[in-house]
Amino acid sequence: MKIEFINLKALPSVLPKKNLVIITDALLQKLYGAMFPEAPRILVPQSEEAKSFETLKMVLGELALLGVDRSWHVLAIGGGSVSDLSGFAAHIWMRGIKCHYIPTTLLSMVDASIGGKNGIDFLGYKNIVGSFQEPESIFCDMTFLHSLPKIQIASGMAEIIKHSIISGEPYFGMLESLGHIDVSCLDDSILYSVVHESQKIKLSIVAGDPLENGQRRILNLGHTFGHAIESSTSLPHGHSISIGLVLACQLSMQRGGMKKSEYSRIVSVLNNSGLPTDPTGLSDTLVPMDAVLKLRMDKKRQDSAVQFVMPVSIGNVVIERLDIDYLANFLVEALK
Amino acid sequence: MKIEFINLKALPSVLPKKNLVIITDALLQKLYGAMFPEAPRILVPQSEEAKSFETLKMVLGELALLGVDRSWHVLAIGGGSVSDLSGFAAHIWMRGIKCHYIPTTLLSMVDASIGGKNGIDFLGYKNIVGSFQEPESIFCDMTFLHSLPKIQIASGMAEIIKHSIISGEPYFGMLESLGHIDVSCLDDSILYSVVHESQKIKLSIVAGDPLENGQRRILNLGHTFGHAIESSTSLPHGHSISIGLVLACQLSMQRGGMKKSEYSRIVSVLNNSGLPTDPTGLSDTLVPMDAVLKLRMDKKRQDSAVQFVMPVSIGNVVIERLDIDYLANFLVEALK
Repeated sequence: MKIEFINLKALPSVLPKKNLVIITDALLQKLYGAMFPEAPRILVPQSEEAKSFETLKMVLGELALLGVDRSWHVLAIGGGSVSDLSGFAAHIWMRGIKCHYIPTTLLSMVDASIGGKNGIDFLGYKNIVGSFQEPESIFCDMTFLHSLPKIQIASGMAEIIKHSIISGEPYFGMLESLGHIDVSCLDDSILYSVVHESQKIKLSIVAGDPLENGQRRILNLGHTFGHAIESSTSLPHGHSISIGLVLACQLSMQRGGMKKSEYSRIVSVLNNSGLPTDPTGLSDTLVPMDAVLKLRMDKKRQDSAVQFVMPVSIGNVVIERLDIDYLANFLVEALK
Repeated sequence: MKIEFINLKALPSVLPKKNLVIITDALLQKLYGAMFPEAPRILVPQSEEAKSFETLKMVLGELALLGVDRSWHVLAIGGGSVSDLSGFAAHIWMRGIKCHYIPTTLLSMVDASIGGKNGIDFLGYKNIVGSFQEPESIFCDMTFLHSLPKIQIASGMAEIIKHSIISGEPYFGMLESLGHIDVSCLDDSILYSVVHESQKIKLSIVAGDPLENGQRRILNLGHTFGHAIESSTSLPHGHSISIGLVLACQLSMQRGGMKKSEYSRIVSVLNNSGLPTDPTGLSDTLVPMDAVLKLRMDKKRQDSAVQFVMPVSIGNVVIERLDIDYLANFLVEALK
């Protein structure tokens, strides 16, 4: 798999001229469609709605209608939902045809498009049906980021900050030095180096454990509590992960791991990116028992325990097997 | 992946005691269910009907209800349809859980269960949606074969004979020496050596080309015409492949490849296994133009040509790129 930073206009020179099909959503087609390579298009619903069995069947039906065979390439243009769905469809069509991603959000550039995980939601479970399959290539055009709503930039920053807590210095300090982050004003070279560094960190972790049997789980930092909050509120992914990171740090402090000073630095970097950091501030929108219920349904649960990713300090993150009841009690207290 | 010849009763000693779910069909459950390991069961429709999107969704829904997580194992007990569906479901549930096959037909013991291909049918296309994923293990209990209807034994023999044409002597000669084959009377040791030899041939071809980019296509011998006939008649798989093998040999003779004497030996072995060998005998049930239409929809078609597997002699099979119009004309003439 290769990652290229490239302008949309240059795509026709690196993609096949024929036997190419584009999967994107209606909004992206409207905003940028004229700049996409010439190829038939399959339009899927926006955001998480794309990741359903119904949309998957629709996409596969369109591939059949187009006469797509193993010589074809799929080009998925969109956020993580579009690439998750398209990557899965491409992997199971005729037992696998080639697929390329153009991530259009910060979150998908640094997280969703990297690592080969694809899939759809089913019966209310996120990503419960899918596969591990890397795309042939990922093409990043930074111009997509300039028109991205602030809330989506913040959402992507949560995963970037997660990567920096795992990796430690100098990356964490670099993000800290940016102060209040407004991507629309950020220099393109800084933006590029942040995206590139985060991709590198995720790629190196995934390379050692592509099927998530061990060390890759470290990328789950902030996600045990974060997913529980995301599933029981309407908060965006990154905003839920931000609270999840804060909760994981608080739990670590309570267990004598993380120092208060490092906790404050992490909270400060999250705040500067426009992310929420106060778990008690969710009381208007969140019923704690809902979050506990979702916590108990965690995909990474093993019997009565979870492999919990514990930040001990910036640059030192470990995995500890913790009882689910213990985590549930902590969560209820922390949300008060 | 490992293949074991084992009695059903010995299964509990080689399979996990808990977190096991069995996928089988209602007939097998009725006939043999009492001998299966203790585990929850998911019953799917018999034969090709199992390989639908609806059944796949049903199976995935049952996995959700059972709380199946990545620590679970799926045990698929049945013919190729059950293992094709179950292997696919296991591969995409939570991005992959462990799966084991117990093939209950001769065809699935020597062909369908080997090589990692799984999948379902969609919009009338066979196996158009699926993946490559080998099971953890294949357990063969030969006692299933003794109660198998003769037509299903014959169907399995077609793939066995195909393997012997690819492999040549001494395997082809051994099958020839069996004369008229009646599995219910065959000595278990002969049956075992035939199944074992065929599995070895398929495994060695698949090992060199797991994703079917090249040499694995040789296993398609007899299948270009065979699939076209199977899709346009109600003939069982092996019976269609038998006619497909005969047609491939006739085409080879016409092009100056195969000698008449070798052709006669192949026809004779097919006949002795209870398989049809006269393409002109299909006139009552087959509209030639239907078969031509299906031929043109071949999954392995590349633009206007097919990588056709050509038997030059017993033990010498080559792949030639042939024009689809040429093959269509040949088929229409041969069916007259």
